[in-house]
Amino acid sequence: MSDIQRSHVGKRLSEIAEYRGVIYLAGQVATDVEQGIRGQTAEVLGCVDRLLAEKGSDKSRILHCQIYLADMSLFQEMNEVWDAWVPPHNAPPRATVQAKLASPKKLIEVVVTAASPE
Amino acid sequence: MSDIQRSHVGKRLSEIAEYRGVIYLAGQVATDVEQGIRGQTAEVLGCVDRLLAEKGSDKSRILHCQIYLADMSLFQEMNEVWDAWVPPHNAPPRATVQAKLASPKKLIEVVVTAASPE
Amino acid sequence: MSDIQRSHVGKRLSEIAEYRGVIYLAGQVATDVEQGIRGQTAEVLGCVDRLLAEKGSDKSRILHCQIYLADMSLFQEMNEVWDAWVPPHNAPPRATVQAKLASPKKLIEVVVTAASPE
Repeated sequence: MSDIQRSHVGKRLSEIAEYRGVIYLAGQVATDVEQGIRGQTAEVLGCVDRLLAEKGSDKSRILHCQIYLADMSLFQEMNEVWDAWVPPHNAPPRATVQAKLASPKKLIEVVVTAASPE
Repeated sequence: MSDIQRSHVGKRLSEIAEYRGVIYLAGQVATDVEQGIRGQTAEVLGCVDRLLAEKGSDKSRILHCQIYLADMSLFQEMNEVWDAWVPPHNAPPRATVQAKLASPKKLIEVVVTAASPE
Repeated sequence: MSDIQRSHVGKRLSEIAEYRGVIYLAGQVATDVEQGIRGQTAEVLGCVDRLLAEKGSDKSRILHCQIYLADMSLFQEMNEVWDAWVPPHNAPPRATVQAKLASPKKLIEVVVTAASPE
């Protein structure tokens, strides 16, 4: 068995790689792109929750979170959803910048690095 | 005590997470946004110095640095400040791209991953 | 000898830092910028291959790949080159966003984190 554990392995990318106690996630985007930024943020953070749960980890163990917003005018609304989601005392280091995403209807993409379960 | 050490923990984000010998910093931006790119770069790199020092580390132990510039026309001036700051023989892997930041007056954001003290 | 191994160390940046079993690469861009996106993607992925090989690693051990495209209209062509390159069963977590790069002729930049050899 390899020392790198991959999950949801596709031909182009995997959703998860785990190695030496660190979980690397692919960039998460919403599938329901008819939603506004609040809905897309909630969906994306739900994806993060589910992927981390598959590895026995959770949002209290995030080491770094890079957020890409399609437009910085969405910053405040994104943050309202984020602030309600992020665990007290365990908010991770985060960076947010504006970037055009793979499709014009995608409003947010989130890249998470997290710790494996203790 | 958790195996993840967080510092400057806010409700939205922490400035530092340390885990298994690696220090993850939040994206650092200047607070004095009336400065030009030289001043903002110097302020941001000073933030990196201070945060790493809090963990007993320093700029000679940076593993990766992602730089976001609000406009790529600032590249040369940013580099002049960077080149004077970066330690001889220990320049880290780096990537620089253009991205609009959280506020229009922010000209640079820096995301650093570094090694804990030896 | 330091616990951080750097390679191709310049005054501004190093191409590689290796620490505790993880290899961090600088953002890779094409040097032949007269090429289109297919050629630039191939050149950049070749750089990744060569740098990882220097550390005894390879593309089957990539933990995360961040791709910056100068224009998202290049997404499909970049993916065709990527898909042919990425090893079956070992595609890494990946994120792709649009970002203006250091020079207007640079069409793609790739930032790779990988595992050292087993």
